[in-house]
Amino acid sequence: MAGSIFGNNFQVATWGESHGEGIGVVVDGCPAGLPMDEGKIQEYLDRRKPGQTRYSTPRKEKDEVRILSGVFEGKTTGTPISMIVSNTSQRSKDYSEIAQYFRPGHADYTFDQKYGFRDYRGGGRSSGRETIGRVAAGAVAAAVLAELGISVAAYTKEIGGIAIDEAQARLENREKSPLYMPDLEASKRAELLLEQKMKEQDSVGGIVECIVKGAPAGLGEPVFEKLDANLAKAVMSIGAVKGVEIGDGFLAAKAFGSDNNDAFCMTKEGSVAKQTNHAGGVLGGISDGSDIILRAALKPTPSIARTQKTVNKKGEEITVEIRGRHDPVIVPRAVVVVESMVAITVLDMLFASMTSDLERMKRFFL
Amino acid sequence: MAGSIFGNNFQVATWGESHGEGIGVVVDGCPAGLPMDEGKIQEYLDRRKPGQTRYSTPRKEKDEVRILSGVFEGKTTGTPISMIVSNTSQRSKDYSEIAQYFRPGHADYTFDQKYGFRDYRGGGRSSGRETIGRVAAGAVAAAVLAELGISVAAYTKEIGGIAIDEAQARLENREKSPLYMPDLEASKRAELLLEQKMKEQDSVGGIVECIVKGAPAGLGEPVFEKLDANLAKAVMSIGAVKGVEIGDGFLAAKAFGSDNNDAFCMTKEGSVAKQTNHAGGVLGGISDGSDIILRAALKPTPSIARTQKTVNKKGEEITVEIRGRHDPVIVPRAVVVVESMVAITVLDMLFASMTSDLERMKRFFL
Amino acid sequence: MAGSIFGNNFQVATWGESHGEGIGVVVDGCPAGLPMDEGKIQEYLDRRKPGQTRYSTPRKEKDEVRILSGVFEGKTTGTPISMIVSNTSQRSKDYSEIAQYFRPGHADYTFDQKYGFRDYRGGGRSSGRETIGRVAAGAVAAAVLAELGISVAAYTKEIGGIAIDEAQARLENREKSPLYMPDLEASKRAELLLEQKMKEQDSVGGIVECIVKGAPAGLGEPVFEKLDANLAKAVMSIGAVKGVEIGDGFLAAKAFGSDNNDAFCMTKEGSVAKQTNHAGGVLGGISDGSDIILRAALKPTPSIARTQKTVNKKGEEITVEIRGRHDPVIVPRAVVVVESMVAITVLDMLFASMTSDLERMKRFFL
Amino acid sequence: MAGSIFGNNFQVATWGESHGEGIGVVVDGCPAGLPMDEGKIQEYLDRRKPGQTRYSTPRKEKDEVRILSGVFEGKTTGTPISMIVSNTSQRSKDYSEIAQYFRPGHADYTFDQKYGFRDYRGGGRSSGRETIGRVAAGAVAAAVLAELGISVAAYTKEIGGIAIDEAQARLENREKSPLYMPDLEASKRAELLLEQKMKEQDSVGGIVECIVKGAPAGLGEPVFEKLDANLAKAVMSIGAVKGVEIGDGFLAAKAFGSDNNDAFCMTKEGSVAKQTNHAGGVLGGISDGSDIILRAALKPTPSIARTQKTVNKKGEEITVEIRGRHDPVIVPRAVVVVESMVAITVLDMLFASMTSDLERMKRFFL
Repeated sequence: MAGSIFGNNFQVATWGESHGEGIGVVVDGCPAGLPMDEGKIQEYLDRRKPGQTRYSTPRKEKDEVRILSGVFEGKTTGTPISMIVSNTSQRSKDYSEIAQYFRPGHADYTFDQKYGFRDYRGGGRSSGRETIGRVAAGAVAAAVLAELGISVAAYTKEIGGIAIDEAQARLENREKSPLYMPDLEASKRAELLLEQKMKEQDSVGGIVECIVKGAPAGLGEPVFEKLDANLAKAVMSIGAVKGVEIGDGFLAAKAFGSDNNDAFCMTKEGSVAKQTNHAGGVLGGISDGSDIILRAALKPTPSIARTQKTVNKKGEEITVEIRGRHDPVIVPRAVVVVESMVAITVLDMLFASMTSDLERMKRFFL
Repeated sequence: MAGSIFGNNFQVATWGESHGEGIGVVVDGCPAGLPMDEGKIQEYLDRRKPGQTRYSTPRKEKDEVRILSGVFEGKTTGTPISMIVSNTSQRSKDYSEIAQYFRPGHADYTFDQKYGFRDYRGGGRSSGRETIGRVAAGAVAAAVLAELGISVAAYTKEIGGIAIDEAQARLENREKSPLYMPDLEASKRAELLLEQKMKEQDSVGGIVECIVKGAPAGLGEPVFEKLDANLAKAVMSIGAVKGVEIGDGFLAAKAFGSDNNDAFCMTKEGSVAKQTNHAGGVLGGISDGSDIILRAALKPTPSIARTQKTVNKKGEEITVEIRGRHDPVIVPRAVVVVESMVAITVLDMLFASMTSDLERMKRFFL
Repeated sequence: MAGSIFGNNFQVATWGESHGEGIGVVVDGCPAGLPMDEGKIQEYLDRRKPGQTRYSTPRKEKDEVRILSGVFEGKTTGTPISMIVSNTSQRSKDYSEIAQYFRPGHADYTFDQKYGFRDYRGGGRSSGRETIGRVAAGAVAAAVLAELGISVAAYTKEIGGIAIDEAQARLENREKSPLYMPDLEASKRAELLLEQKMKEQDSVGGIVECIVKGAPAGLGEPVFEKLDANLAKAVMSIGAVKGVEIGDGFLAAKAFGSDNNDAFCMTKEGSVAKQTNHAGGVLGGISDGSDIILRAALKPTPSIARTQKTVNKKGEEITVEIRGRHDPVIVPRAVVVVESMVAITVLDMLFASMTSDLERMKRFFL
Repeated sequence: MAGSIFGNNFQVATWGESHGEGIGVVVDGCPAGLPMDEGKIQEYLDRRKPGQTRYSTPRKEKDEVRILSGVFEGKTTGTPISMIVSNTSQRSKDYSEIAQYFRPGHADYTFDQKYGFRDYRGGGRSSGRETIGRVAAGAVAAAVLAELGISVAAYTKEIGGIAIDEAQARLENREKSPLYMPDLEASKRAELLLEQKMKEQDSVGGIVECIVKGAPAGLGEPVFEKLDANLAKAVMSIGAVKGVEIGDGFLAAKAFGSDNNDAFCMTKEGSVAKQTNHAGGVLGGISDGSDIILRAALKPTPSIARTQKTVNKKGEEITVEIRGRHDPVIVPRAVVVVESMVAITVLDMLFASMTSDLERMKRFFL
């Protein structure tokens, strides 16, 4: 089966390995007339680019995007938008050794089992570079959403167990933290932890939170195509994500109904609202007009220089140290990836929502 | 958009409202030659049937399934299997009042916003009865998996914060607990909590855990169609689920790489295995041959008799008490629903995995 | 793979064998608020019902439809519409013999090869009764289209080589012909041919034409999801259809560009139109606002009483006469099936067309 | 909606406009282990390349393909294969004028209606260059099929009404005819007709036939996902195709059952076969093991230098002559496009067929 195409009406097809010619994406189903140029995409890609801080791999990759189709005279044409980022900073020799064994926590063994062999250079298709295609597509989706008054913003919620304090967090501080934490005091503490773990040749995980503002009520379909179900798939499909939760998430499992229910109320303007948002903006799988809130749990980077046990392709038990230029934590670079997958999903569900009510359809066509 | 069809190669289309003629499902893509009869399906449906214990709604519904197509002379034919459960115990008058306001924590408001109006009787399509179709389809999927040596089993992990002790848990005890908890001592404590909350007219949430045994390595596709991504969608699409995690899940976000990585080793029989299973059986989105483990967080039942604030359709703020026959906790009845969605997803990904390796395909066709 | 689900946004899942409990369909994705009742569906089903004329099988089947879900207080709710027609007139003993051999022109052999065995009663899933689900779904699709000013009408164009005269044809005459031919004089001649062929224990094929009026320009997507491509699939998926053409179709292959091109012109009202319609209403896969015209070629009924050669399951060459109550021509009963598949497809593409232009989307949401 | 992605398990996503950076395709779902290099793809692309004969546009385009991903050490890896052909011979100024009016027989008007504006250079996305992506993907599909003993071959059946004589046709002569007609005598007559029509500033249509040999019985799903239904969509999605037929096709509509039915017989080797093949290798939508035969009707090239009536964007009726370097007939260049779409479809259905029979699945997994 194919596995690199996402979405139903807004479709994203990514391709590329970490050490091949490049990484790319085809975005199919973007409405015509959207102002678009490479700068808009680059802004998103720069947020996941390595080598920006001492907490990410020192590999220097410019990750410059080129738009090859689907844009004419500064606007999208409605036809597929093909985008490509060339690979420039690969040192394939770094990886010749790992062809022979299975790195713990990586997909080496499962690729071999699935396909019979693998492109062992830098993780091949399971490399983190694969997310370049997601982010370029996410930039397009976010631009469409922005035209409709919908914003998507993610940030680091927690690193190695050190969490931001909601009261101290300011989204505008996000870029000031090398860890994309909007609470700069928590960021400082997390940086200290990271320094220590880097010395110990270890790595750290964390949590990314994402908030969608301005989404109308009515997104998501009952039963299988719930908005939160599609968001869960979108976010869990990002490498290293091991858990996804909406609203109060796992805390809701410990709560009682009298606390967890969000009471409806009327705003001064006379519209229906909720007094609280334990639900995270989704009721019965359908957006309720309040903020949509989700979190993703990311495991620590599996590539660590510390000695680890594993087996090689001959079936011998060996010990290895994964040298090379690896991120001690991937959470900060994953922030924009989560944001992108959420934007893609919300847009796809927005498209789907247009046909739920015959009266609104009539106004569209008649 | 349609939202009631799940899967790519093994497809499940459910239909039905809680107070219509019945609930049903069409299963398309089941292989021919599978021994099948209504008894096999009923066994699964009986596990979600209400009125079994004092901790579920006292509504008595037999939920008897009829197979209408796709089975001939005791075997599946490869064509769609249509199954139906008639609704028998509805008291529509119970619901006439709630047509006029929006119940907190329910989909009343979002349905109205999406569709312009709603079938207000018993939640309509967003009722928990919708899961009957999932469970009937899950029974079929589980039967196919069983033929291939793969088992799927779920149980209650935690109720209202009271968790099972892994060391005490025995799957064979699951049916002995009215809460489907395999640790009977923990079950007792959770029952006490439930008694108290029922007196307080409140409700309780919890966590369901599911384990897949015997799945071969190689299920799941890199990038978007990862096994864990599809499991996350499948499970998050169940009403009341607010979070999903694989393996160590959210705990992995607090772990360090040196602990979280699972070391590979060789078994006595000479095959590759892992010393631990923090990953939950999935590496890079592809099954690694060890147990696949996931958990779902379920919120407390939103229907509670305690006084709650809300608004009515006229835009007035009111207070309500949701009377009627409601479950004080839905976790135990959701156990078989999680199991079913996991079985459906694993089977669908198993089908997809058959075309990954040309040499294996050749052996199939030549 | 599943093969009984059609459509992307308006989805149709059919099920049922000719001699099982019944035939049914689940329609998922119908907008809410559409006036609907069983009478509207029955009207369509009655057009394909057997036993209406001496040129169809004398089996008397009422084919009464029941709506089981998705309609509340006379309107669709936006959730799946499940419909069922019970089987009532089956004589399974008629078919015990054909379990042992492969009827020429039927799917007996291919089902056995594909599935290992088959439900041999009356063709099972490959019976013409399978189209009941299509027609019930088509009635729903046509009702939505009617609300938007779009009509779909099919009729018999040709039977056994006897074609209608366009100049004589009147759609209002269609129901006056037992063959659904809108040219009553041609119908008479075709009836004579049929009488003769029935005496000769033979069967006859023909052509169905379908016209869509009122469809806006802009339906269909460039490249693979062209409107005509989807119509071709929809119509070719009907049993016995061996060819599909749009506009001038196969005649266009013999034409020259100077004749085949449709010149654009301006209407008195100041809108763009075409002077001719060789294209059949589709340019580059996208509707151009003129009538959409297509034709389907249907083979003669394969069930004939005349002696035929075939082989049995033991691998012996034998001769057979297919007795039983068979249609000498299936074209007239296929008319409403073609109409239904076209309606389903046009509606699905209409949904898809709503997201092509950002400015129109903005007007929908803002 | 997106419209540039084709297939379910073997998926093809194309992109590119005639005057953008290039044309490309992402092939997702190709099995790992297939020997692959650019030469194999180029061989297919060279068959559709312009400028090869005096009957195609004199534009010289090398159409050199580059593989950007999915191939490692000479074999496919199972991950997406991204291929690109740069555009080199565009003269955009040729097209500045046509931005202002709608060319008859082209998609100019429908693109404007659908998207609000269009990339008017050389047809943009609706240009024949779009088929480069189909052919590159078709080369991959054909290579997989070849490994399984299945061949796909297309050729020109008819040009401007001049048809090949089956008795004279030899596939090995196909490349000797500038029109890809395997009957060289018919080719000569068709060339004369073309010379005449070129002088008259006119264009010619024709018919392409395609034969699949070696496909096993069992491909295709009953009901909507019939093999012939998917072939019809695949082929009708090619620009300029106005009709598709399987086996006897439209002739079957004039035949009687006693002639049209294919009698089954036993081969000397003891396997089931058919004495004739009116059905074209498909019974009930499922391949029967005999040759699969289909035909596509292509309209004459709409771009002709002769004076034509049309309207401009201001709503004025005007006359135009379409100058530029256009093919007087596109049938010969479409041959490999039909072949490619058929190969893609057959492979996708082959994948789908693997899960129909539980016993065969067990042999795969156990």
